[in-house]
Amino acid sequence: MPQSMSKNIEETCVKENRIFDGKILNLRCDEVRTPSGRIASREVVEHKPAVGMLAVTDKKTVLLVHQYRYAVGEETLEVCAGLIEKGEDPAAAAEREMQEELNVKARTLYRIGEFYASPGFCTEIFTLFLAEGLEKSSLPQDEDENVSVLEVPFKDIPVMIKEGRIRDSKTFAALSWLMAKEGIAPEI
Amino acid sequence: MPQSMSKNIEETCVKENRIFDGKILNLRCDEVRTPSGRIASREVVEHKPAVGMLAVTDKKTVLLVHQYRYAVGEETLEVCAGLIEKGEDPAAAAEREMQEELNVKARTLYRIGEFYASPGFCTEIFTLFLAEGLEKSSLPQDEDENVSVLEVPFKDIPVMIKEGRIRDSKTFAALSWLMAKEGIAPEI
Repeated sequence: MPQSMSKNIEETCVKENRIFDGKILNLRCDEVRTPSGRIASREVVEHKPAVGMLAVTDKKTVLLVHQYRYAVGEETLEVCAGLIEKGEDPAAAAEREMQEELNVKARTLYRIGEFYASPGFCTEIFTLFLAEGLEKSSLPQDEDENVSVLEVPFKDIPVMIKEGRIRDSKTFAALSWLMAKEGIAPEI
Repeated sequence: MPQSMSKNIEETCVKENRIFDGKILNLRCDEVRTPSGRIASREVVEHKPAVGMLAVTDKKTVLLVHQYRYAVGEETLEVCAGLIEKGEDPAAAAEREMQEELNVKARTLYRIGEFYASPGFCTEIFTLFLAEGLEKSSLPQDEDENVSVLEVPFKDIPVMIKEGRIRDSKTFAALSWLMAKEGIAPEI
């Protein structure tokens, strides 16, 4: 541990100001005290936790979801993902979302890790799973999901990243991890 | 392109409702029309764009930043990163942040890609750079930055990820991309 890690770097809340309580997020603008004693303001978005699934088939392909994202005004290619419902276990949310979006179930789910989407301002944390042993689900697909599924061979991933077709952070993260696992180098 | 990609999946804004205008983010709660004609609400956080730098040395180590993140109430290890100032070029922001946080300058900056942090609700996009040929900067370090720098050998990255010491999405993404580039497999 570097020497400076032992010094106090925490900021403490002086006054919590709730600005907005919404459906998927809340907003606060807190007054905080910095380690040097200065008063500063911090904008904080409280967001539900999420799951993301790197769903790979036995044919060395990965299933991605094509959808429209209103917030950014773009169609994106992303790993299957979704919010965790209140009281729901992350693995259960993973299974539910794969059913809804991909219409598959996985024989094995490996938990790669848990990551904040943007810890500078937002509490959103997502658990990333590797889903293997995919089987077509017998349940009907969720008709409400405005998504389509794209099956991408592992070997096409480096070019897709290089060409800028992956614009979602968790998807870039998941595909890069998969490349490392499979011994595939990025295109530079 | 899958057949379903040709169908209209866009949502259009019916009424924009501005909730909050802040220092680093704004909040809207828009009324939208979905492709099926239904009216729905969409919470959107407008956030400044950012840069993240995978700063690697000639000794096969990567420089990470240890800091406190008030929004999540944790100390994190992250790649050097920061917001792009108004009118600033991403590469110039990258150089400025590496000076401020790492006290280095890079001989070469390679643009890996541009990724949304969480496109389901937020406009924040970050440009990720690979920074090589690092030289100690002659300028003084920014005293206001409450950060310390950790130098991590490439070979230690898989264990750090496996042990959950990397909890920031862009850092997990950058380190996974680096593992793929260097032919290092993740620990499973």
